[in-house]
Amino acid sequence: MEKKWTKSQKVHARRLFDLALSREYAILISTINSMEIKTRDEVWELYAILRKKRKELNNKYDYRYSQLIFVFAQLVRGGYLSLDELEPISKEKQKQIEKMVNFKAIL
Amino acid sequence: MEKKWTKSQKVHARRLFDLALSREYAILISTINSMEIKTRDEVWELYAILRKKRKELNNKYDYRYSQLIFVFAQLVRGGYLSLDELEPISKEKQKQIEKMVNFKAIL
Repeated sequence: MEKKWTKSQKVHARRLFDLALSREYAILISTINSMEIKTRDEVWELYAILRKKRKELNNKYDYRYSQLIFVFAQLVRGGYLSLDELEPISKEKQKQIEKMVNFKAIL
Repeated sequence: MEKKWTKSQKVHARRLFDLALSREYAILISTINSMEIKTRDEVWELYAILRKKRKELNNKYDYRYSQLIFVFAQLVRGGYLSLDELEPISKEKQKQIEKMVNFKAIL
């Protein structure tokens, strides 16, 4: 398993990481803006969504090189990155990630 | 200091308590709906507003008869009830509350 990250791979990894996060925020922001809060329950429903998302983002977006392969696999499975987009971080890492995405049990 | 609550005073107290809470929610809901979230910071600003309000409401709306005079004083000071509206819970309690409202240091 290819573990080292070259300088160029790191640059691409950072860009892809940020891209996924942007996409995630875009969906979150559009969800918030589309909610028309009318009741007390809806206020606390919105609060629960934000609290859950905050925890989720903190857990998921772990930019340590030892974790990145797992992070990217999770982002692909969540639909925030496509496998094709991962090519710049090397064919081999892309393949590792693909395997993880397909082997659902480990995630 | 008049401490006991008659049946009729309790009914009025409950109604006023709920009225203040409704007004507080109306303002909160209108604040949320008027916010147009565009950035990540604004998402977490909204989250912080909701978290703070949740804590504040939990602390403030304490419906124990031993606490109600203090609760109403705080609600008047916050603008969620007027002194005039408190008349049905007795002139004496209304006066007690007025004193507390004016004696800012104790709240």
